[in-house]
Amino acid sequence: MKDVQSERDTRGVYLNRVGIEDLRIPITLKTPSSGPLNTVAEVRLAVDLPAEERGTHMSRFVEIINEIEILKPHKIEGVLEHLKERLGSKSAFLDMTFPYFIKKKAPVTGIESLIDIDCAINAELIGEDFSFFITSSVPVTTLCPCSKEISDRGAHNQKAIATITIKSSSLIWYEELVELVERNASCPVYSLLKRPDEKFVTESAYDNPKFVEDLTRDIYKELEKIEEIEEFEVYVKSFESIHNHNAFALAIKKEG
Amino acid sequence: MKDVQSERDTRGVYLNRVGIEDLRIPITLKTPSSGPLNTVAEVRLAVDLPAEERGTHMSRFVEIINEIEILKPHKIEGVLEHLKERLGSKSAFLDMTFPYFIKKKAPVTGIESLIDIDCAINAELIGEDFSFFITSSVPVTTLCPCSKEISDRGAHNQKAIATITIKSSSLIWYEELVELVERNASCPVYSLLKRPDEKFVTESAYDNPKFVEDLTRDIYKELEKIEEIEEFEVYVKSFESIHNHNAFALAIKKEG
Amino acid sequence: MKDVQSERDTRGVYLNRVGIEDLRIPITLKTPSSGPLNTVAEVRLAVDLPAEERGTHMSRFVEIINEIEILKPHKIEGVLEHLKERLGSKSAFLDMTFPYFIKKKAPVTGIESLIDIDCAINAELIGEDFSFFITSSVPVTTLCPCSKEISDRGAHNQKAIATITIKSSSLIWYEELVELVERNASCPVYSLLKRPDEKFVTESAYDNPKFVEDLTRDIYKELEKIEEIEEFEVYVKSFESIHNHNAFALAIKKEG
Amino acid sequence: MKDVQSERDTRGVYLNRVGIEDLRIPITLKTPSSGPLNTVAEVRLAVDLPAEERGTHMSRFVEIINEIEILKPHKIEGVLEHLKERLGSKSAFLDMTFPYFIKKKAPVTGIESLIDIDCAINAELIGEDFSFFITSSVPVTTLCPCSKEISDRGAHNQKAIATITIKSSSLIWYEELVELVERNASCPVYSLLKRPDEKFVTESAYDNPKFVEDLTRDIYKELEKIEEIEEFEVYVKSFESIHNHNAFALAIKKEG
Repeated sequence: MKDVQSERDTRGVYLNRVGIEDLRIPITLKTPSSGPLNTVAEVRLAVDLPAEERGTHMSRFVEIINEIEILKPHKIEGVLEHLKERLGSKSAFLDMTFPYFIKKKAPVTGIESLIDIDCAINAELIGEDFSFFITSSVPVTTLCPCSKEISDRGAHNQKAIATITIKSSSLIWYEELVELVERNASCPVYSLLKRPDEKFVTESAYDNPKFVEDLTRDIYKELEKIEEIEEFEVYVKSFESIHNHNAFALAIKKEG
Repeated sequence: MKDVQSERDTRGVYLNRVGIEDLRIPITLKTPSSGPLNTVAEVRLAVDLPAEERGTHMSRFVEIINEIEILKPHKIEGVLEHLKERLGSKSAFLDMTFPYFIKKKAPVTGIESLIDIDCAINAELIGEDFSFFITSSVPVTTLCPCSKEISDRGAHNQKAIATITIKSSSLIWYEELVELVERNASCPVYSLLKRPDEKFVTESAYDNPKFVEDLTRDIYKELEKIEEIEEFEVYVKSFESIHNHNAFALAIKKEG
Repeated sequence: MKDVQSERDTRGVYLNRVGIEDLRIPITLKTPSSGPLNTVAEVRLAVDLPAEERGTHMSRFVEIINEIEILKPHKIEGVLEHLKERLGSKSAFLDMTFPYFIKKKAPVTGIESLIDIDCAINAELIGEDFSFFITSSVPVTTLCPCSKEISDRGAHNQKAIATITIKSSSLIWYEELVELVERNASCPVYSLLKRPDEKFVTESAYDNPKFVEDLTRDIYKELEKIEEIEEFEVYVKSFESIHNHNAFALAIKKEG
Repeated sequence: MKDVQSERDTRGVYLNRVGIEDLRIPITLKTPSSGPLNTVAEVRLAVDLPAEERGTHMSRFVEIINEIEILKPHKIEGVLEHLKERLGSKSAFLDMTFPYFIKKKAPVTGIESLIDIDCAINAELIGEDFSFFITSSVPVTTLCPCSKEISDRGAHNQKAIATITIKSSSLIWYEELVELVERNASCPVYSLLKRPDEKFVTESAYDNPKFVEDLTRDIYKELEKIEEIEEFEVYVKSFESIHNHNAFALAIKKEG
């Protein structure tokens, strides 16, 4: 049977990426303390394509993805090495997004419940150069300092999502990123709060007013201090309770 | 050229609906005061299909949709009559969702700005029986009565969306639905608020705490009083500022 | 601490549903053959609220959801009983959507790969009346009979999603619904196809042309024959390869 | 009333962007031939924030957006100049996404219908340096060359979306980008096709098989020839009719 993909291409156009996306698979992740975590990832897998090859072999991406079971950073580099080899490419890319689950204790009653956090892994192997990025989108409460200052009572507050992406030279757990964001927010959010907890989070938020700009900077300051983190990006989006549109702030730290 | 769709079908299965969806078109709507409003609608158009016909003629839906320009309730009944006739069906259905825009004055400074509201029209002509439903999803602020009551300072609040669907015997403007929802919320939301306005909305929300249950019931009570409204549904969703999940309440009033 | 939710309400408005939504949790499902399946569900949990109670206790929903581990139909009835009791309501509702994974063999080479299928469970306990619905949205290929008939070569084809919802008196596995849809489509879809498989699916689809109307009816006919299925709905949506909008058909079978 | 945003910040963190997003507004665009086009844009507006300022003034973004009416490239530079000045920043950014509508003639019958195309504008003013990018996501049909080659009859085909982003030194109309993509696809898609048209598009697609890699390269080759285009990116995504996941290719041309 003819292999059309393997035909020689004469158009002279190098493709930066070619591959598959929107593939969902069940995955098992290691966690720092509570055993393996089962979740579902949406996957994008790609290689680059030399100018002289007509097409890639899409089925091989799925073959390789079928081999992944327990995700660990060093295993992903192997997956990308494998991909490069099987597809005869110079670069290989893996992007995964998935909900991650963390057990949290309510602040006063201590009752435990799970909270879901959108996380991602983005890995690339360009030549022999391997880069590994992790992302966590942490929901928190922000309370507006201006609203509090100018009002005789109350202050508008809302859910905000702080999305951190880091490139690190050593393992950073999602739990660390989540805690880092939470201790800088007006208040963390929880899945389960009894009345004493609700009193606590309401007053905490009121006592810690933060603009999106404040939260972005406070997270930035903490990330900057962690030596293993070479590059990072902080993007905070506030689902404004007084507007229909939303507010955001973004700070980028580049290597070097 | 053979007309495969017109073949006789022997499977004996009546189809409740067959048609097209995910079609976007620019539309012009009448407004009560500020002239024609240009927006973009996502459209679903359908008929029923008798058991003995193999297929409908999908291109005719687009032909008919191309004729629509200015939307008015009585015009939509004509569109559905036309559809029934052209497709030889007993029923015809039109569903449209679109952003609607309302000019609002900031509560203290009076500065005007536009706010976008998701709205919908759902019309059906079953035999000679025409029904017309309109929907408006109004963003507002809700402030938690429990949080206010039990806390020494502050109270959690957030954006909530109140979605009202009504079936009415006479014209109800979207503006009326939006105002009805807003005056029952802890506070309306705005696109443009200067500091004196922000002070006002913060204190107003604090002075009008509402659970999703409260807002749903208060809207229900007002809709009930409007004689022309034969049926309605109120669905309020609160984008909880202290949780990652959301809270909702739903109340349904059926005709008769 | 005052329990504001428990206050007596005098507005006289019964709420059909009040609860939480957009909560994600990891779940484990039983499968007919391949052991427990780990996935992630998005959950909505609700009760009705008597006219004379001001609010429900939202935290109890999360407490109850935290207890769910392995989902089985009879367990869900227990969950709803529990919910009714804890919340003092007359009705209770559980809605879950989740990706389900099925191992499929490529049609010629027999190579196995996983495919993800969007599925749902909707359960309600109204008084003592328990109803249980399952939904599966199965991706398949449809090839247009009209296009094939009138063209000298080729025929347009595309991905279509057939969504089946059934109410059954006994256990029906998702695997059964998926197979039922697949054998009625122009061709199933797969995650992994080598060239001999691709030849097979191309020719199969060409040999089995189906309109959305055809696929809807053929699924309907098969569901009708299964005695345990009391009610069902078939909704097929075709992501048209020759249009920007999509086509759909819907057939509903009501009990009795 | 105290202006908390204007406080001096001592954290020393520069914010790359701060602003508003998810704001929808009605806009009017110029078209090359058919008069002004009314549509709805989703807008993101931002500036950078010096390390020593605590917050930006979010309401000013909305004030400025309220002034925009007819969008033209040179007008947008003015908007960003204005934004920089009002907010006291060094950079300003405007991102808009909107459906654009093009009247197309069916290939044989010549019947006209509108098709909706997702488009975007991304403009940035960094210091005195103004850059203007336009994006168009054009739906087309792709037919698989491998499937055609190896099969005795038929060939799998599907909807694909080709997204082109260009940075140009002079005005390029969306119509030009759409036509460029369409003439390189296996076949364009249409809103309205009668049977002679459907025969034509079926056979055209069959006669012009294209991998996502092919379509990406063919578009790249054409864009490369247009002198005014300084940078561009071509991303083609194929909604695979034989898989549940999708395939994609990406090619990037950088200035210089």
